[in-house]
Amino acid sequence: MERKSKAQRHTSPARPESPRGRARRASGPDEVAITSSPLDAAVKQIRQLRGRAERERSGTCYVEGARIVAQAVRAGAAIERCVIAPALLSGEFARDVVRDLRALRVPVLELSPAAFGSISFKENLQGIGAVVRPRLELLQDVRLTNTLGWVALDAVGNPGNLGAILRTCDAVGCAGIIMLGNTTDPYHPAAVRASMGAVFSQRLVRAGFDEFAQWKRQHGYTVIGTSGTAARDYRHVGFQAPVVLLMGSERLGLSAEQQAVCDLLVSIPMVGTGDSLNLAVATSIVLYEVFFQQQDTAAKGLPG
Amino acid sequence: MERKSKAQRHTSPARPESPRGRARRASGPDEVAITSSPLDAAVKQIRQLRGRAERERSGTCYVEGARIVAQAVRAGAAIERCVIAPALLSGEFARDVVRDLRALRVPVLELSPAAFGSISFKENLQGIGAVVRPRLELLQDVRLTNTLGWVALDAVGNPGNLGAILRTCDAVGCAGIIMLGNTTDPYHPAAVRASMGAVFSQRLVRAGFDEFAQWKRQHGYTVIGTSGTAARDYRHVGFQAPVVLLMGSERLGLSAEQQAVCDLLVSIPMVGTGDSLNLAVATSIVLYEVFFQQQDTAAKGLPG
Repeated sequence: MERKSKAQRHTSPARPESPRGRARRASGPDEVAITSSPLDAAVKQIRQLRGRAERERSGTCYVEGARIVAQAVRAGAAIERCVIAPALLSGEFARDVVRDLRALRVPVLELSPAAFGSISFKENLQGIGAVVRPRLELLQDVRLTNTLGWVALDAVGNPGNLGAILRTCDAVGCAGIIMLGNTTDPYHPAAVRASMGAVFSQRLVRAGFDEFAQWKRQHGYTVIGTSGTAARDYRHVGFQAPVVLLMGSERLGLSAEQQAVCDLLVSIPMVGTGDSLNLAVATSIVLYEVFFQQQDTAAKGLPG
Repeated sequence: MERKSKAQRHTSPARPESPRGRARRASGPDEVAITSSPLDAAVKQIRQLRGRAERERSGTCYVEGARIVAQAVRAGAAIERCVIAPALLSGEFARDVVRDLRALRVPVLELSPAAFGSISFKENLQGIGAVVRPRLELLQDVRLTNTLGWVALDAVGNPGNLGAILRTCDAVGCAGIIMLGNTTDPYHPAAVRASMGAVFSQRLVRAGFDEFAQWKRQHGYTVIGTSGTAARDYRHVGFQAPVVLLMGSERLGLSAEQQAVCDLLVSIPMVGTGDSLNLAVATSIVLYEVFFQQQDTAAKGLPG
C-alpha cells in the first residue's frame, strides 16, 4: 500500500486534452517537431534514460510495452509519467493500462509515432511506455521472512541473466535480489525485458560484500553457495527456507572469501565437456530445488 | 574419428614462416595494409561471417577465444583455418591450442593486432580465432541411443537462449538439438559464446515440424512438452530416458499442433506474478529432472 500511494502522489493532471496535445495530433502522426518545446524536452529526457549514468543520476528508468507497464502498476511502482503514441496503441489491454494510469493521476504524455519511435528501443512499437522511479532498499532493513528467501548476486555482468534470475525469483516466491559488487543495472532495458516485469515485483537491494557478510552473521541467516568442487550435490541436501542463495559472477563464480560466508556449498552435477552452466540456469535450478523442498514440507504439514 | 579426419584434410601448410608474414610483422603490429593482398581478402572474408547470410552461404562460421577454439578441436570440428595475432596471444593454453592446430595441419593466418581487432566481436582480444565448418545432420539419420536424449526447439529467436540450452544439454548428457522452424543460428556469435563450446560437442539438426512429427511416429520416440496449463507437474512424472524434450518459442511456447505431438505435457509450478520462465531456464529445469531420474535409475541398477 505504501508503494501504491507513491504513484498516487503525482497530482499534476494528465495531459491528453491539452491544446498542445490536440495541435500535435492534428499536425500529422509522423511529424517530429524540431522546436525546443516542453514536449521535446521531455522526449529528450526520456531518451537519455537509455544510459545507465542518466538512470542513476535521475533515479528513474524508462520501460516499454503494455505488459511491463501493467506489471509496474500492479506492483505499485512509482510511475512518474506514462508515454503513449495513440496511433500505435492497439488492443483493449493497452488501452486499459492507460485508463488505469489516468485514474492513478499519472501524467500521460501523448506523442506522434515518430517521436515515440525516437525514444523506443523495441522493434515492435506498442505505443506505450512509462518513466518509473524504482525503489532500492537498504540491506539493513531486510529481514528473511516467510518466503523462499533472497538471491544475492555478486558482480553479475549480463543484464539478460539478471532479468532471467528476477523472473525465476518471482516464480518460486523469493522476496528479492541483493546486488553485491558491481552487479549490472536491473533497469537496463535488456534486464527489464528479460525479467518480464519481475523487476517490479521483486525487492531490490544494493550492498557491499562486507555489509552482506555482517548482515548474515548478525541475523544468523543461512547462506547457500554453489561450487563445482563442492562435495554435496544440490539434490541431496535438505534446505530450510528461508535461505539466501549467493551466486558469483558469470566468469568467476564464488571467490574463496565468498565461499567462506556460505553455510552450505552445493554442486550441480555435470557429465559433459563443460564445467559450468549459464548463471541464470544454475541459479534457477537450485532455487527450484529449494522451492520443491519447501512445497513438500508444507504439504506434509511439517514446520517450514 | 571421422570428424577429426575432416580437420586433417586441409593440407596447405601453415603460414607463419612465409616471407609475407615476416614482412607484415616487421611493418609494425598496429598497421593494417590497405593494399588488396590475399591476406586482406582473407580478413575481409572472415569479417563477412558476422552476417548469418554469409555463414549460411559459405557453410562456415568464425569463433574466437582460446577456450572455444580448443573445444572445437576437442570435438573434432572441421577447422578451416586458425587466425592468430601473435602480439596478442598470451598464456600457455592459447599457445598450446595453436600448436595443436599446426600439428593437425590447419592453416594458421597471422595478423597484426589491428587486423585481428577488425574481425573481432569481443572486447577483450585474446589473439586467437578459427574459421570452422560445422556439421549439420539430417533428422532421418538421428536415432535415440543410450543418452539422455535430444532437445527439439521450435522458432527460438534469442541466440543467447540457444547457447545456454546447448550448454545445459552438454552438462546433462544430451546428444544434441533438433532445430525446428526458423530457430536462430547456433553459430551466431552470441549463441557460440553462450554455449561455451557446447555448440561443437552437441550434434545439430535442422528439420521441419512435419518431418519431426513423422520421425517421432516412425520410431515411436517419447516426446515431452511443457505447458502452463498441463495438469502434471514435471517433478511428479516418471521420465524414461532417452526422451525428446520439445520446447516452443520464447513468446508463444508450444502451439496446439506441437502439443498434440507430445506424449506427455508437464508444467513447471510458479507462485509469482508471472506465468512463464526464461526459455533456457525452463528447458534446463526439465532436463535436470530427466537427468536425475536417469541417474537414480542407474544407481538402483534398474533397466534404463
